[in-house]
Amino acid sequence: MLVVMKKSSTENELAGVMQKLTQSGLAGHMSRGVERTVIGVVGQTYPELRDTLELLPGVDEVIPISKPYKLSSREFQPEDTVISVGDVVIGGDKLAIIAGPCAVETEQQLLETARAVKAAGANILRGGAFKPSTSPYQFRGLGKRGLELLAQARAETGLPFITEVLTPQDVELVERYADILQVGARNMQNFNLLDEVGKVRKPVMLKRGMAATIQEWLLSAEYILAQGNRQVFLCERGIRTFETYTRNTLDISAIPSIQKLSHLPVIGDPSHGTGRWYLVPPLALAVVAAGADGFMVEVHPNPDMALKDGAQSLTFDNFERLMRQVAPVAASVGRRMPVEPEEEHGE
Amino acid sequence: MLVVMKKSSTENELAGVMQKLTQSGLAGHMSRGVERTVIGVVGQTYPELRDTLELLPGVDEVIPISKPYKLSSREFQPEDTVISVGDVVIGGDKLAIIAGPCAVETEQQLLETARAVKAAGANILRGGAFKPSTSPYQFRGLGKRGLELLAQARAETGLPFITEVLTPQDVELVERYADILQVGARNMQNFNLLDEVGKVRKPVMLKRGMAATIQEWLLSAEYILAQGNRQVFLCERGIRTFETYTRNTLDISAIPSIQKLSHLPVIGDPSHGTGRWYLVPPLALAVVAAGADGFMVEVHPNPDMALKDGAQSLTFDNFERLMRQVAPVAASVGRRMPVEPEEEHGE
Amino acid sequence: MLVVMKKSSTENELAGVMQKLTQSGLAGHMSRGVERTVIGVVGQTYPELRDTLELLPGVDEVIPISKPYKLSSREFQPEDTVISVGDVVIGGDKLAIIAGPCAVETEQQLLETARAVKAAGANILRGGAFKPSTSPYQFRGLGKRGLELLAQARAETGLPFITEVLTPQDVELVERYADILQVGARNMQNFNLLDEVGKVRKPVMLKRGMAATIQEWLLSAEYILAQGNRQVFLCERGIRTFETYTRNTLDISAIPSIQKLSHLPVIGDPSHGTGRWYLVPPLALAVVAAGADGFMVEVHPNPDMALKDGAQSLTFDNFERLMRQVAPVAASVGRRMPVEPEEEHGE
Amino acid sequence: MLVVMKKSSTENELAGVMQKLTQSGLAGHMSRGVERTVIGVVGQTYPELRDTLELLPGVDEVIPISKPYKLSSREFQPEDTVISVGDVVIGGDKLAIIAGPCAVETEQQLLETARAVKAAGANILRGGAFKPSTSPYQFRGLGKRGLELLAQARAETGLPFITEVLTPQDVELVERYADILQVGARNMQNFNLLDEVGKVRKPVMLKRGMAATIQEWLLSAEYILAQGNRQVFLCERGIRTFETYTRNTLDISAIPSIQKLSHLPVIGDPSHGTGRWYLVPPLALAVVAAGADGFMVEVHPNPDMALKDGAQSLTFDNFERLMRQVAPVAASVGRRMPVEPEEEHGE
Repeated sequence: MLVVMKKSSTENELAGVMQKLTQSGLAGHMSRGVERTVIGVVGQTYPELRDTLELLPGVDEVIPISKPYKLSSREFQPEDTVISVGDVVIGGDKLAIIAGPCAVETEQQLLETARAVKAAGANILRGGAFKPSTSPYQFRGLGKRGLELLAQARAETGLPFITEVLTPQDVELVERYADILQVGARNMQNFNLLDEVGKVRKPVMLKRGMAATIQEWLLSAEYILAQGNRQVFLCERGIRTFETYTRNTLDISAIPSIQKLSHLPVIGDPSHGTGRWYLVPPLALAVVAAGADGFMVEVHPNPDMALKDGAQSLTFDNFERLMRQVAPVAASVGRRMPVEPEEEHGE
Repeated sequence: MLVVMKKSSTENELAGVMQKLTQSGLAGHMSRGVERTVIGVVGQTYPELRDTLELLPGVDEVIPISKPYKLSSREFQPEDTVISVGDVVIGGDKLAIIAGPCAVETEQQLLETARAVKAAGANILRGGAFKPSTSPYQFRGLGKRGLELLAQARAETGLPFITEVLTPQDVELVERYADILQVGARNMQNFNLLDEVGKVRKPVMLKRGMAATIQEWLLSAEYILAQGNRQVFLCERGIRTFETYTRNTLDISAIPSIQKLSHLPVIGDPSHGTGRWYLVPPLALAVVAAGADGFMVEVHPNPDMALKDGAQSLTFDNFERLMRQVAPVAASVGRRMPVEPEEEHGE
Repeated sequence: MLVVMKKSSTENELAGVMQKLTQSGLAGHMSRGVERTVIGVVGQTYPELRDTLELLPGVDEVIPISKPYKLSSREFQPEDTVISVGDVVIGGDKLAIIAGPCAVETEQQLLETARAVKAAGANILRGGAFKPSTSPYQFRGLGKRGLELLAQARAETGLPFITEVLTPQDVELVERYADILQVGARNMQNFNLLDEVGKVRKPVMLKRGMAATIQEWLLSAEYILAQGNRQVFLCERGIRTFETYTRNTLDISAIPSIQKLSHLPVIGDPSHGTGRWYLVPPLALAVVAAGADGFMVEVHPNPDMALKDGAQSLTFDNFERLMRQVAPVAASVGRRMPVEPEEEHGE
Repeated sequence: MLVVMKKSSTENELAGVMQKLTQSGLAGHMSRGVERTVIGVVGQTYPELRDTLELLPGVDEVIPISKPYKLSSREFQPEDTVISVGDVVIGGDKLAIIAGPCAVETEQQLLETARAVKAAGANILRGGAFKPSTSPYQFRGLGKRGLELLAQARAETGLPFITEVLTPQDVELVERYADILQVGARNMQNFNLLDEVGKVRKPVMLKRGMAATIQEWLLSAEYILAQGNRQVFLCERGIRTFETYTRNTLDISAIPSIQKLSHLPVIGDPSHGTGRWYLVPPLALAVVAAGADGFMVEVHPNPDMALKDGAQSLTFDNFERLMRQVAPVAASVGRRMPVEPEEEHGE
């Protein structure tokens, strides 16, 4: 932490700051520039100290220089985190490709989709049983019945599944069924929920909040890590901007940024990121080209009949076509597809 | 709902849309312009229908024309909602002025502050017992002990109090102590929490989410109203923008906008809105001048020792000075102060 | 400027940074914390140096600590700038109230409006002769003829006028007619235009760009000041955010922020700030309550016939009503109206 | 244009709207829904009509349904525009790869860079002679001398060059030297400049403004097209959002969005889009994978000595490495590199 004094600050004010630091059990190292005096603070600081110091007379600005997250930082762990879900690996050289309907609607809808995405080469199934919904009058998911259907689809296809948990009370139930728990964008700062999924022994995918900075996102990951769950990966799903043509603005630069700052795997979600099905394939390719560990897309047997997010869902054909386009792009950036031709022959 | 066809759409495509509407139990009224054909949809539509229709061939755009919120709309209830908390009224001609520390820290800190804000003319006490915190390493509140201290401050000063509830499990506990429950900005779309506070028999203050549109905010209020709790008021607390000088951008235009669209009372929070104590007084005056039903500010006996949000807290002196400045502005826009001189004599 | 080294940086890397500073004619003061080493840079730095230093091995971050604007800063000039335009003063204890049509359309439209706003108590007339227009197919103003009509309205009413200049070539022409030159939001970073109005001997009102930070806004003012024109005042007119209910988000907190950082007068424009006429009066009151030096609003004899911005224009009646509401709010915050009752009698 | 009446509107109000339309030479087609009445407006409407109608009593909302841009729309011209600059083609199956320093600084700096980017496979040289600069105290370019050096570099390497023009007066000068004129982000709504480059017989690259929607961007292109210059291509360079880790947020979804809405070629600029050199290669790959017609990056012989934007410039080595990474990604999405191995042998 650095305390920058005002040009017009007095020696008394300087002494006041130094005294405050001493009282707080810290040391201050003064550096007198031509224009300004700056005090480097040494010792165990805490975020609130910034506010405290900024209020002292003569202080112009207080600048934190240590990053506020620790367990999620590259400095803490230089090697990439690799997460295993059965045979599936998230964060290795193979892409994780998560596909399925936005919401679980019926047994037929889910099973058909699970078979189709498996056939096209996805390695994780998605499907919402508990759905967050902007309006109280919209479909809010099948709940436990949705989890059972997802388990049935897993049993049939062998695909592990990810599903969203909305509230701390449901964590135990969702953990019992799901292979991976999802914390959605609207809950990125639902700290009680973060605590709860931090106590779970299954991987957690943390979506970026609509208005969350990269730093805030890593701090939310820190909540989960701090509870002992180190199997965390991140999902960029678009941020809110002034642009209205797309539902959100998919911030692809967040992918290499996270990889620089953190050891956690990171994927992209072009379905929520764009909100328009015809933008999903080019953005999925962009996500892979930018170096992501995978992507998640919504697939539906009949998007124009979907109860939720039909406009951003791919048909089976479109998903299959996308997977064929992804393969060479993945190879170009040194990644392998979840299921490779050779392996297919072996099956 | 209006379906706008593409310039290049064919008669067949038009027929396809009309058929789809019939299948969905709706009727379509066609209007052929020189450039475009538009179909007005008649019947009980639902939000997902938009996505469905937009995917049909020949369709350019689908435009919803009914507002998606009902119970919170002015059309549903033309008269202003007025909320009573004991003697205190929110939404009437008297301002509701909520003041107190960001977080309850100690008995002394809270009681001193409660006495000071009462003496200066506030009519509701605030104080956080459960605190949302961006980092897991920051202070997260005293919990139940904080509620007990707030109840003690109420007993001593007579001020009703408002405090935040973070998670559905805590609703019952918080309801037992608090006069008003607060749903914070980060939880504006925590739908399980909204459901839960909708079942409570006490007023709820719903803060606007950092990236929430006015429409989304009203839809979140709709969740609470739809559960049967009609004692809801709103609090504008700043939205996230590109500007970094202030912590958020206080959207004062949201106040008259809400008053136009909804019957619910609305107040402003210049402490979180600006994040800098010296901006709080001018913005509090602006909030009142814009016609708000009141405001909420953070007051602390010793801001530079505050465990949370010291930089945006007013000292007792600053709060008292602000209250003296507010009085004539309130009078200018036809509002009375919570405690008026005459009344004080009467007490 | 402060250079923060990485935790993992080596002594060699540290030496490299110190050497680079020496080569650049600067001195470095090292401060070794427990976690990090920080180097305070002493001497005449320049913005590009930041980029240069950030690329050196071992460097984590470079933090500029001097504000990049000088002539516009409070530190450079502690007393408020006060601008005189004939009898009208901008930045003193009287409010500057600028009113008139968005665009000059006809002699009758302009003269009627000029008389009406004068009668209601405005002290500066506005009217666009050169109009920026998002689409090439919209009305772009009457040009020189508009300036002539404005001069005629001034001759008749005695009101000085402000009008926008769009391009460097027009500065001479506009200067010949206008009392105050306006640089609009879209041109806030049209640096050639800023240079040109910096050479003029008339006051300039600089509007904030739609996506400009407060710091960038002051840097644009700095361009004008640096050319020798010290008669600059600022106008907050709303920034672009995700909210679509209002045309822009009027950032009222920018008003006291500018007053803290700079000595330049600052006013607000609730017409462009909101884009809806019924939001203009409450926001104008909020601007005054927040301490602005005045405001600017659009007034039109017949808003539903306006060629431009009718939806945000006030009728004569609405403007007159607003002026009556402003008077007590202005008095509450220690400001006088441009024309006060006593004075009116004297005329 | 559609006029949506309020639920509570009366027959009289309805008649008033119909009468207003008739007066304006338009026809109205009424469609009475269960909840609302909607009037479809038939005839030649204009943007201001919206404001006019919205002010009439009983009107809830007016919705424009025709897109406001014409010449730039896909509906106007279904086939892709292809631009030729000598042998170089922008918008065809070969990528356009534009590289060079942010600013022209010296003959040696420019020539070295031109040779290096040519050797690595770029087909267009970039370099700023007139530089927009946030602060008046920063480097603003070499002006005409910069143009001469660019012409010299072209003569030596055969690479056509693009350079920015800042103000209408300079258009003639810049046109005389440059192969492609650039209109920068800050000037996207400098309408006089757009008019002027619209009269030129050379291609124009129009960068997206920092806060411009896709629609506004196309409307600015429309200005140039409307003056008769049909050789326009677009460059996405990042929009301003709340995120501060990156300089801007590169909106890659704008690339396929533009391709859907318009026939104009579109490229991406990951240097300005991210502001950090280590994010440039992954984002350049993402731009190509998303289907762009090319990209533009800043390359400098010695980024830590650059007078401008060193932090986002690639070294020669980094650029060459990037070009090798681009080749397979381009092939994956059906694009060819500007200079292909076979061709190189042929030269």
